[in-house]
Amino acid sequence: MSQDLRTGRRQWMGVAAALGAALAACRKAPPTGDASGRLLGAPVRDYGARSPFETDTRAIADTRFPETWSSRTPLQDSVGMLTPSSLHFERHHAGVPTIDPAQHRLLVHGMVDRPTIFTMEELKRLPSTSRICFLECSGNSSSEWGNKPGRTAQQIHGLASCSEWTGVPLSLVLNELGVQQGAQWLLAEGADPCRMQRSLPLAKALDDTLVVWGQNGEALRPEQGYPLRLIVPGFEGNVNVKWLRRIEVTDGPYMTRDETSHYTDLMPDGTARQFTLMMDAKSLITYPSGGHRIKPGFCEITGLAWTGRGRITRVEVSVDGGARWSDAALQAPVLSKAFTRFRLPWRWDGGEAELQSRCTDETGYVQPTKEALVAVRGVQSNYHNNGIMVWKVDGDGGVTHA
Amino acid sequence: MSQDLRTGRRQWMGVAAALGAALAACRKAPPTGDASGRLLGAPVRDYGARSPFETDTRAIADTRFPETWSSRTPLQDSVGMLTPSSLHFERHHAGVPTIDPAQHRLLVHGMVDRPTIFTMEELKRLPSTSRICFLECSGNSSSEWGNKPGRTAQQIHGLASCSEWTGVPLSLVLNELGVQQGAQWLLAEGADPCRMQRSLPLAKALDDTLVVWGQNGEALRPEQGYPLRLIVPGFEGNVNVKWLRRIEVTDGPYMTRDETSHYTDLMPDGTARQFTLMMDAKSLITYPSGGHRIKPGFCEITGLAWTGRGRITRVEVSVDGGARWSDAALQAPVLSKAFTRFRLPWRWDGGEAELQSRCTDETGYVQPTKEALVAVRGVQSNYHNNGIMVWKVDGDGGVTHA
Repeated sequence: MSQDLRTGRRQWMGVAAALGAALAACRKAPPTGDASGRLLGAPVRDYGARSPFETDTRAIADTRFPETWSSRTPLQDSVGMLTPSSLHFERHHAGVPTIDPAQHRLLVHGMVDRPTIFTMEELKRLPSTSRICFLECSGNSSSEWGNKPGRTAQQIHGLASCSEWTGVPLSLVLNELGVQQGAQWLLAEGADPCRMQRSLPLAKALDDTLVVWGQNGEALRPEQGYPLRLIVPGFEGNVNVKWLRRIEVTDGPYMTRDETSHYTDLMPDGTARQFTLMMDAKSLITYPSGGHRIKPGFCEITGLAWTGRGRITRVEVSVDGGARWSDAALQAPVLSKAFTRFRLPWRWDGGEAELQSRCTDETGYVQPTKEALVAVRGVQSNYHNNGIMVWKVDGDGGVTHA
Repeated sequence: MSQDLRTGRRQWMGVAAALGAALAACRKAPPTGDASGRLLGAPVRDYGARSPFETDTRAIADTRFPETWSSRTPLQDSVGMLTPSSLHFERHHAGVPTIDPAQHRLLVHGMVDRPTIFTMEELKRLPSTSRICFLECSGNSSSEWGNKPGRTAQQIHGLASCSEWTGVPLSLVLNELGVQQGAQWLLAEGADPCRMQRSLPLAKALDDTLVVWGQNGEALRPEQGYPLRLIVPGFEGNVNVKWLRRIEVTDGPYMTRDETSHYTDLMPDGTARQFTLMMDAKSLITYPSGGHRIKPGFCEITGLAWTGRGRITRVEVSVDGGARWSDAALQAPVLSKAFTRFRLPWRWDGGEAELQSRCTDETGYVQPTKEALVAVRGVQSNYHNNGIMVWKVDGDGGVTHA
């Protein structure tokens, strides 16, 4: 189904035929396109910005309440595994507070021997660590549960992003303060006006949870929790509490509004799954995807895969509606609980095609078809849809949600 | 010399005594610092920006010619291994051109069977790859050759940054166009007004050199070569030609101005080393460093190490002027030709101290002392200073260049 240009064994007919385009050839050096002219360019500057020719934005659906809303990452244009901080998805419940880090405090109390209030300066003096990991809202891809699918990868799946985070392991803080016998959970509370509150099992808090102040080499962005947030690798976005102000160690979950009336999965029998915090393995073809238009000839199929359970070990791609599957190449380094970029060379013959990807993680979990997911979970949930996503290529190269 | 809080074996006296600060303790939940108030926060927005409380900038020394100048990354405030694109160092020779990607072309010609002009669209259709790697100007740390050292890590060593780059392997392009017998080098030329030209050995071009359009998940920044640049992992910054418009395959180096009158290393005997393109292993303590002021008690020493020859395998730190050395922890993942973050817990007793780091790479190369470097190279060069850098901590916690 595909030929890999990377073998380098084929020659000119590779690029020319593969692109299906008439590349401009020349025997001598002709004047080449010279978009810059010879005028002296712009000077160095203290803080950069992107080119005016680049206009990608987060997508914001119509709303009367932009403070309690979301914006979505343009995954269809993503390259590599990182999301630029300016394009990291947002999901707020009472808007983005403006917090002076010199005034911010973190209280850690409850079932600990030495309840403590930390300043930012005190937290930053502790031993720190960095980690690249994804963040995904559990409501991502929720339109896939119903029959009103979005049009683009961004609109459907754009509540997922990946950054390098830097901060102090929460285990270090909790162990130093002395966790008491019988403690099983904790509550994390944000400094946003709604005081977002979520419960987290103590085992996860002591495993790989971080209290972070850094994102992609600089301070957290305001909409990502500046100056302090929780990063709970692999767990649904909402428990990665932003603008973190308080951690209370408890003997059970707090049963806050956002883990009872929201962020639960309503099952076909009318019961609700609660505390389904782990994000299951998921993958997505980002190019070509909804809204793209491709040309006959070579086309690199590329996308992203991730899992809350560790590393992605395999991504398969089908271009014929799931009849045959080919292993995609995984871009190194493949990091635990991070976006993994996959790529597969393909030659589009101009006919109709159905593109989809299916990932497997290190636990052996395989991303399910949407049908398999619905058979178990029904269609009442708003959360945790990780079903295989199909893009349809029509005869003129247009790509749409299948 | 140090105790590692990460062991988690010590308790409260760890954090409190280590910080040397009176942390605020409380038996019940008191009102905590509440910097945000309860007013509804800001709405979602289409493209983010950093907090107004964050004011880090690239450093620009005084100049009458800001178009042919440099700006430097604030390494003393860096976290993790990535540099935000807005703070990536710059070094321009005729300013930053404004290039419309729809008009931009890349000509590949010379000793190839099929000279070709590529549009951006054509290049982006080719099989691509991503890689996190550092970029360092060979003139970085040049003040260390003389007796007028800079004051901060940024001023002295800030011509080094690290990004995730995405593009097509140059080997793929060259192999497809058919490299002719006898070809040994190539010339890369930029579309900046000065038409920056640098020669590159063909072996390196066919090894891991990339023609990139992506940086940190989005398009290249203008000052990093938008829309297209060369990334030559591990080689001095100047050959990573920005605004790439032309590649000519040749049988020898072109001997351009920037590889004859500049970017050579003048040796004590009056000869000059030429084409010293590989960046040797180097490390640097970024915190604490020049301009910082520390307090007695726990202090995490952290910094960055990198080498053009592959992976960093070891970083040692001394706090007593080089008498004793301790192995620092290397932050995973340790990637080839990328920044590697190192960390070492330390307890500052309030006395004078001399801090320095020494790295080793996978070839066994050990970062030299400045004295060892000068003994071989003299002090006439402006380039390739990778000597061990010493920070002096005085009795009141101030940190200066030693």
